[in-house]
Amino acid sequence: MNKIPLVQKIISKNTDVDTVAIIPGSNFKYLTGGNFHLMERPTVILITQNNSCFILPSLEKNSFEELNIDAKVFYWQDKDGYQDAFQKAFSYLGDVKSIGVEGQNIRFIELDAFQKVIPNIDIINYHKQLSSLRITKKQDEVDSLKKAIHLSEKALNDTIKFVSVGKTELEIKNFLIKSLYDHGTHKIAFDPIVLASTHSALPHGHPSDYKIQHNDALLFDFGGCVNGYNADITRTFFVGAVNDTQRKIYDTVLEANRIGIEKCIKDNTLDLVDDSVLSFLEQSEFKEFIEHKTGHGLGLDIHEEPYVVRGNMQKLIPGMVVTIEPGLYDKKNCGVRIEDDVLITESKALSLTNFTKELTII
Amino acid sequence: MNKIPLVQKIISKNTDVDTVAIIPGSNFKYLTGGNFHLMERPTVILITQNNSCFILPSLEKNSFEELNIDAKVFYWQDKDGYQDAFQKAFSYLGDVKSIGVEGQNIRFIELDAFQKVIPNIDIINYHKQLSSLRITKKQDEVDSLKKAIHLSEKALNDTIKFVSVGKTELEIKNFLIKSLYDHGTHKIAFDPIVLASTHSALPHGHPSDYKIQHNDALLFDFGGCVNGYNADITRTFFVGAVNDTQRKIYDTVLEANRIGIEKCIKDNTLDLVDDSVLSFLEQSEFKEFIEHKTGHGLGLDIHEEPYVVRGNMQKLIPGMVVTIEPGLYDKKNCGVRIEDDVLITESKALSLTNFTKELTII
Repeated sequence: MNKIPLVQKIISKNTDVDTVAIIPGSNFKYLTGGNFHLMERPTVILITQNNSCFILPSLEKNSFEELNIDAKVFYWQDKDGYQDAFQKAFSYLGDVKSIGVEGQNIRFIELDAFQKVIPNIDIINYHKQLSSLRITKKQDEVDSLKKAIHLSEKALNDTIKFVSVGKTELEIKNFLIKSLYDHGTHKIAFDPIVLASTHSALPHGHPSDYKIQHNDALLFDFGGCVNGYNADITRTFFVGAVNDTQRKIYDTVLEANRIGIEKCIKDNTLDLVDDSVLSFLEQSEFKEFIEHKTGHGLGLDIHEEPYVVRGNMQKLIPGMVVTIEPGLYDKKNCGVRIEDDVLITESKALSLTNFTKELTII
Repeated sequence: MNKIPLVQKIISKNTDVDTVAIIPGSNFKYLTGGNFHLMERPTVILITQNNSCFILPSLEKNSFEELNIDAKVFYWQDKDGYQDAFQKAFSYLGDVKSIGVEGQNIRFIELDAFQKVIPNIDIINYHKQLSSLRITKKQDEVDSLKKAIHLSEKALNDTIKFVSVGKTELEIKNFLIKSLYDHGTHKIAFDPIVLASTHSALPHGHPSDYKIQHNDALLFDFGGCVNGYNADITRTFFVGAVNDTQRKIYDTVLEANRIGIEKCIKDNTLDLVDDSVLSFLEQSEFKEFIEHKTGHGLGLDIHEEPYVVRGNMQKLIPGMVVTIEPGLYDKKNCGVRIEDDVLITESKALSLTNFTKELTII
């Protein structure tokens, strides 16, 4: 699999850079099929309109050869360091003046290595341009997402049966992880968030030894991964009972989730989706408990373009998959977030997540 | 927990930068106790000799307040973007001319936000200077590492009993992961590498549907994580039988591992350790199968300073923990790697890994 020509097309269409650099991560995986690690050893693909080459640590030689990509490679050994390989790679490509980079990914060490070879090189954030590579999903990608979501929902179903008063967040998290593997997901998308009681009001909190109590909210934000494609699902339950405030918060978030999905229609802007959701929450009695935007794209990365955020005037296109995950976070009571993974189709928003959103007491 | 003064000491000792930037990752965790995610939302601590401040996405407000750190924070909302928070933070700190950064961690988007505020800011790779924060481990850190290693060894012990001809690499990997959680590790350090037959000759290969056969080499590179501290262990077994070449390769790697550990003595340089191991391998009949350096530091990061690599003239200090993981990779037969986690003490090298290294047929 060699999709490097797709980047060459982007370069020739935009004409704002002569070279693009890709480092290990989802673009690298998408373009080459190679699942290299981002670590202390710089690993870079340099792509020009008509040429390309790889800078690789020599220990990746065998892994690279398995990809069957016919390309010039500059290997470097631990004992020699990497700068010389950068020098040779740029010499090979010829007259490089500007380079487009993955702004959320590329690090100081790679940028510095570029500048050591070409001190005046113009470095441009090419994140947006490169996002067009993966922003709409093809059928096989949607199938992998569907499978990841389906298996994740099975695992959640098992896990809520395991929940009982006195069990800790960590115990429940570990059960969920094992259940994800039992159901056949290849990896976990991220370390699951399992938060009870007031902890659930931390949008990115970490599970602890806290023991579940009667009337607690219990929030799960998690996903399995299939063929590299990640599910990202949030459900919030109540243990044993639900009080009035919890129910009101839940109902408000659920309605916001419904509005968000409803707006995921071809040609609507991402701005419109987020604005519809946030405007509804802002008009509720829980305005002060809003913490974040409505969602993000989902695929090989757990957070990727397009972001469902006010100000993003990009239009929805069939094949995009976004999360719709409104939340309200009452530090003194509970946080509630309900997150679905939504596919934009020609005709409507199609939620790939099917787990019930009815208020559920477990 | 607020260890930011440790960075201020480094700044005042080195006097080569006036400010240091820390983003989510192990230094951030070590300094604050906060386990924030590195994602599309820039999250930065700026530290000067006498002051510091945080730039945080507003959705981390509750998580940050749980840390009980008394510091100036500039929050930014998704809808506003982050540049204004950077502007305010630098204004607050006053006259910033140079900034030390985590070169293997900080990304274009943060660097670019710095430069948008202070176009001529001098950006310096502060990776080495900052590594002094965590390069020697205190007793509680060693205890966490020991526990992570101990639990990981239990999981490996269970997993090799699960191995049989016909099982796939992925099945075995999933069993290992579940076993790690069953034994109580908090996380997996990384997605385990379980590679059989010629796949084991890929130093960073990925488990597949390949079914284990009689006489296969079977390599495990894995670890559990306790309190954020990671085990990193490699063992290579043979299934049912071992042939002469496999045995010779194994014995050579085992001797290299022994040499490496033996050299892990206070005041030896890292260069000497790697050179001793590599010189031995280079003099063997398997010279062409060498792929990588001897090892790396181990702690909150799976790969961290100090690197056990030729040319690293840093001396070993009691409290350092490094991996000793020589390997030989014969693409036509098998790869063998044997990796121990070694603590430098006042008197000797102390392997924290205790799993047998005798050639084992499973």
